[in-house]
Amino acid sequence: MSELRQDPIHRHWVVVAPEVAPRLEPVRAEPPPGAAGSCPFCPGNERATPPEVLSLRAEPSGSGPWCVRVVPNRVPALRVERDLHGSAKGVHRRLDGLGAHEVVVESPDHEATLADMTDTQVGRVMEAWQSRQRDLFEDRRLAHVLVYKNHGAQAGARLAHPHSQILAMPVTPAAVATRMGHALDRYRDHGRCVFCDLLEQELHDGSRIVHSDPHFVVLCPYASRVPFELLVMPRRHGPAFTQATPDEITALARILRDALHRLDAGLGNPPYNLVLHTGPNPQALAPTVTPGPDLDASWHWHLEILPRLLPIGGFEWASGGSVNPTPPEDAAAFLRGLSPQATPCT
Amino acid sequence: MSELRQDPIHRHWVVVAPEVAPRLEPVRAEPPPGAAGSCPFCPGNERATPPEVLSLRAEPSGSGPWCVRVVPNRVPALRVERDLHGSAKGVHRRLDGLGAHEVVVESPDHEATLADMTDTQVGRVMEAWQSRQRDLFEDRRLAHVLVYKNHGAQAGARLAHPHSQILAMPVTPAAVATRMGHALDRYRDHGRCVFCDLLEQELHDGSRIVHSDPHFVVLCPYASRVPFELLVMPRRHGPAFTQATPDEITALARILRDALHRLDAGLGNPPYNLVLHTGPNPQALAPTVTPGPDLDASWHWHLEILPRLLPIGGFEWASGGSVNPTPPEDAAAFLRGLSPQATPCT
Repeated sequence: MSELRQDPIHRHWVVVAPEVAPRLEPVRAEPPPGAAGSCPFCPGNERATPPEVLSLRAEPSGSGPWCVRVVPNRVPALRVERDLHGSAKGVHRRLDGLGAHEVVVESPDHEATLADMTDTQVGRVMEAWQSRQRDLFEDRRLAHVLVYKNHGAQAGARLAHPHSQILAMPVTPAAVATRMGHALDRYRDHGRCVFCDLLEQELHDGSRIVHSDPHFVVLCPYASRVPFELLVMPRRHGPAFTQATPDEITALARILRDALHRLDAGLGNPPYNLVLHTGPNPQALAPTVTPGPDLDASWHWHLEILPRLLPIGGFEWASGGSVNPTPPEDAAAFLRGLSPQATPCT
Repeated sequence: MSELRQDPIHRHWVVVAPEVAPRLEPVRAEPPPGAAGSCPFCPGNERATPPEVLSLRAEPSGSGPWCVRVVPNRVPALRVERDLHGSAKGVHRRLDGLGAHEVVVESPDHEATLADMTDTQVGRVMEAWQSRQRDLFEDRRLAHVLVYKNHGAQAGARLAHPHSQILAMPVTPAAVATRMGHALDRYRDHGRCVFCDLLEQELHDGSRIVHSDPHFVVLCPYASRVPFELLVMPRRHGPAFTQATPDEITALARILRDALHRLDAGLGNPPYNLVLHTGPNPQALAPTVTPGPDLDASWHWHLEILPRLLPIGGFEWASGGSVNPTPPEDAAAFLRGLSPQATPCT
């Protein structure tokens, strides 16, 4: 029997209806075009990209070949050379295309995936995300930095070499601002962070937990929009990923790789989107969301992973919710039952 | 040079960046599985569906073969047999799966599309949508009725025979309620309907208008989320599609068919989602959005058409906006330049 469930943060309603699709067809991530030889992200082809803004190397001295490399997008959607300048005309509002659009090359290996890299290598990717966010927040014209990854052509990936993307914007995106507003409303009503409450409740209940460690919890959200949606949440309350400690970065790498490996092992390398939701730039010149103690107390950074097993249709576009045939309790039990792959922790 | 544009109703920010994809690859709607012989929506196979809730026939007397048929979904996501009953536990909230999930079979012809049907036949589809909305609103437990269409497997269609879907829910979906809230805020601030203001401004400007007649305007929204997004808006203010007059239904059929034909002719039968946005049930027992004069004055029913030429990636999921490489002014000029197909108006 189907039911409607509301997400406490997004506030979308999801129809959880196992009867509409009792058996999900497996969907395999299609590799985007691009062979290793001609790939601009492969070692030896560094001159095919704009000059790097960050590189992490294996040797503590910073020498040796790069392990992770961050470069500006060759054709950026937004550019730092523009001004914080906007205008309005009647009902319409616009801003110049100010921002930054960067690519995080996650490995020198063209064939690698986050799920099968070493924990150390995934940790370097997390370190690059954090370092770039910190650096971009130095530019007070930028209000928000989104980090996301598209795995598989169906999820929007355009190049095969493993990479994630960073888009820094002069505004906080509407959907993010709306969620921050919901979290803030609840904090003002109840005096508590809704994410902390959710975590406490989910850990006590247990049915939607996939995996946890002393720093992080991976769970299938109560109102999952898609089958096998995952939420990766730090136990320690904090509004910003930029404030994660080195120990937390190490733990995040391990638990994220484990979560992605479970999806791979259980679902056969599905396409997915991954999004890091951190707080806005606290120093922004023109903030969309008011910074300060209430925002810091009510927002709790986290990661969302959305496997793309079903197409997005008109109901999803229109409602902000979805019809999800896989109860998150079933998804969590299935993923919990898979043993994590042992990988060398070099 | 890219720019950020904010939609006055959704309030999402879209990065309009032609440089990121100067040339769009054509995407052809993939037919979902299902041959005419075994199709449950084809004439002669009526017993393969649950008993019809509505049928429209060619003869004014109501006799003769059916032209449009509405049947309950064989495996509905929501059911009228459930109760208006919900519960909450901690941060989570749920409702029993009350509602209705119906299929509008748009033609007896397995191969037809809305774009190549006669205006009269599209008019019957509109009539069926309106008749079902009116009927479902008689059930005061239902707060909202969404009508949508998925064309092509990439857009979520699961059966090849032309059809649209109706999902009636005990709540107004979050994304719809948010937009109604934005329209209401603006009405309270400015004393005017934001849609009426938008229409007046767009007609005066002209650059984003595709087509118009005395009843309706078809335009590419200023902050289009996808290339060739279309908004179909009645000139006469009214919150509800259920209140459209027979003349308006006739005109809507003509202009909608024309719009879809332009997409077909210009883009080569792309996959798309179509959504009808009408007001909530004014008689709802447990309304999500407060009905009354302010809602009636601020909400203006309309249709959205979203061609699915680009995959939805992490940025789109996270932000509620998108990176759109096709400026809506270019899209409108292209579609405006296509001459509408002459079709028999039988």
